[in-house]
Amino acid sequence: MTIYQEIRSQPDVIAGLLEYGLSQAHHIAATIRARDIRYVYLAGRGTSEHAGIYGQYLLGALNGLPVALAAPSLFTIYRQPPQLRDALVIGVSQSGQSPDILAVIDEAQRQGALTLAITNDAASPLAQRAALHFDIAAGPELAVAATKTYTAQLTVFALVAVALANDQTRLTELNQLPAALTAALHLEAGAAAAAAHFREMRHCVVLGRGFQLATALEWSLKLKEMAYVVAERYSTAEFQHGPIALIEPGFPVLAIAPRDAGSQSTIELLARLRAAGADLLALSDDETILAAHPLNLRLPRSMPGWLAPIVAIVPAQLFCYHLALARGIDPAAPRGLRKVTRTE
Amino acid sequence: MTIYQEIRSQPDVIAGLLEYGLSQAHHIAATIRARDIRYVYLAGRGTSEHAGIYGQYLLGALNGLPVALAAPSLFTIYRQPPQLRDALVIGVSQSGQSPDILAVIDEAQRQGALTLAITNDAASPLAQRAALHFDIAAGPELAVAATKTYTAQLTVFALVAVALANDQTRLTELNQLPAALTAALHLEAGAAAAAAHFREMRHCVVLGRGFQLATALEWSLKLKEMAYVVAERYSTAEFQHGPIALIEPGFPVLAIAPRDAGSQSTIELLARLRAAGADLLALSDDETILAAHPLNLRLPRSMPGWLAPIVAIVPAQLFCYHLALARGIDPAAPRGLRKVTRTE
Repeated sequence: MTIYQEIRSQPDVIAGLLEYGLSQAHHIAATIRARDIRYVYLAGRGTSEHAGIYGQYLLGALNGLPVALAAPSLFTIYRQPPQLRDALVIGVSQSGQSPDILAVIDEAQRQGALTLAITNDAASPLAQRAALHFDIAAGPELAVAATKTYTAQLTVFALVAVALANDQTRLTELNQLPAALTAALHLEAGAAAAAAHFREMRHCVVLGRGFQLATALEWSLKLKEMAYVVAERYSTAEFQHGPIALIEPGFPVLAIAPRDAGSQSTIELLARLRAAGADLLALSDDETILAAHPLNLRLPRSMPGWLAPIVAIVPAQLFCYHLALARGIDPAAPRGLRKVTRTE
Repeated sequence: MTIYQEIRSQPDVIAGLLEYGLSQAHHIAATIRARDIRYVYLAGRGTSEHAGIYGQYLLGALNGLPVALAAPSLFTIYRQPPQLRDALVIGVSQSGQSPDILAVIDEAQRQGALTLAITNDAASPLAQRAALHFDIAAGPELAVAATKTYTAQLTVFALVAVALANDQTRLTELNQLPAALTAALHLEAGAAAAAAHFREMRHCVVLGRGFQLATALEWSLKLKEMAYVVAERYSTAEFQHGPIALIEPGFPVLAIAPRDAGSQSTIELLARLRAAGADLLALSDDETILAAHPLNLRLPRSMPGWLAPIVAIVPAQLFCYHLALARGIDPAAPRGLRKVTRTE
């Protein structure tokens, strides 16, 4: 399967996961409920960390759980790991093999914390050593740049959060995902045109916030892996605390700007960036934002905010794919990388 | 006071803080000990967030406390904040005024969590509304780009962590800071020469790990604010999970590479980057690394790893200052920024 086919397979992968994953999610939720969990401690690298950041917002908003992103070097280099006894410790890894993520899960097991592995390989060390395992069952992913395993990881977080909240309304909303993903694939022509517009860019900044911060981070990583763009990434709030000084006429800004309770401040920030001469592409379902920024990709409007990131990454993946092709780069085989990265 | 004077004042600022801050630190440590704190929830933006990330490693390694970085939009946009009753909730802000950081502290107070503000203004709303306040007492900072308030914030985390651990050895080590900061100021000529080498760079990546991750993040931000460089930032581990694809001949890499338990993997990574043609500047106290990379800045060797970030940022600030001057930019007044940034 090519990376293009992997991107196109996402509606099917997610439809399969929704069917197959719900009972896993209920089992995991029941195990979590039986413990006195105060917070989540989450370890992941690269794309898997971005899925974890979606989890951070989702578990916070739906389940009231604070989420700490792990500092693996405390376990591997300094050998002074924190106390995790009241935590649910989650390791996210497509391959289930990175030694630093394993070190976090192993230490949590030693301390008696509840552990959960989210992987695409049930036979991997991470899946084997954690108390609970959620198999994302996305099928083999051949491209180095992860696409379908990312949306599958996000969907796993959505399933677990909804099962833990026992939220029937949101459970029903989950079923909109495959159709919305199919609709997102129809943005390909627009994504290719936008990529042509930015064909020469050497650097840019990608902005998003809240649930969509994960989309900004993941889009930025795909830009680096697939098209070698020095793509900064920030939340729209954090960006204003210093990095905004980068903006000069022609500076490329890619913004995920959903219609939500924070729209007004996003509208004001984007207007400010345009006034400073930024070359801005908006991914949005907000009519005001779409009207103000003619270079845009219109996201399916029907998606609730908490699920929208699973859909919004698809046009971003297609943008990077076409940007790579336009630059004569093989988007499936980034220089200097292998599929499984082992760091300590 | 100019930004150059603010940078040069850091030995005095930190000497004053060590004298004045210890009783504050012991009071705060006693209050924390009287509560059943399971983890820390920490909110900060920009430079203050980087200080918090140093705190994340320090409170983890010295005090066994997991640290979660806050997701402020859960409080301000989504109005679905997590449960914080077992947390020590810390707000870090030079001005003590950003509404999103205030929203986290206010909600934590409502929930009955213990709150701590770390600010440079005892009359600010953040200082007033938190249960505990640590005044960094760095004196007014006029430049938009924070320098002395950053090293002061780091020192506050060091004081609190040491007081909480009741660690007499480390308490003595803290007293080495002013002399080490003075020694670091003597790296100015080398920093200016390195800045001249990189005068034309449009983008780069800054790498660090563990305690020194904060230095990489803060160096990257100073590069943006003071010299408009698109400066990516990664931990040396995270960098290998995708972003390393950016490296091509001539790509500038600025690496904080201390002599510690992780040196071997750092040495291997830097050799790999050099082999791929990276133009590499190493900040290090490791003889192997210094010998392998002729473009380097030699950090004072006497500093223990947990304190080294307070010193290592100084040559990085001087590098950015001279890079700005070499490019004809006023390093104290970045375009598009004011000293106090208010985000929601």
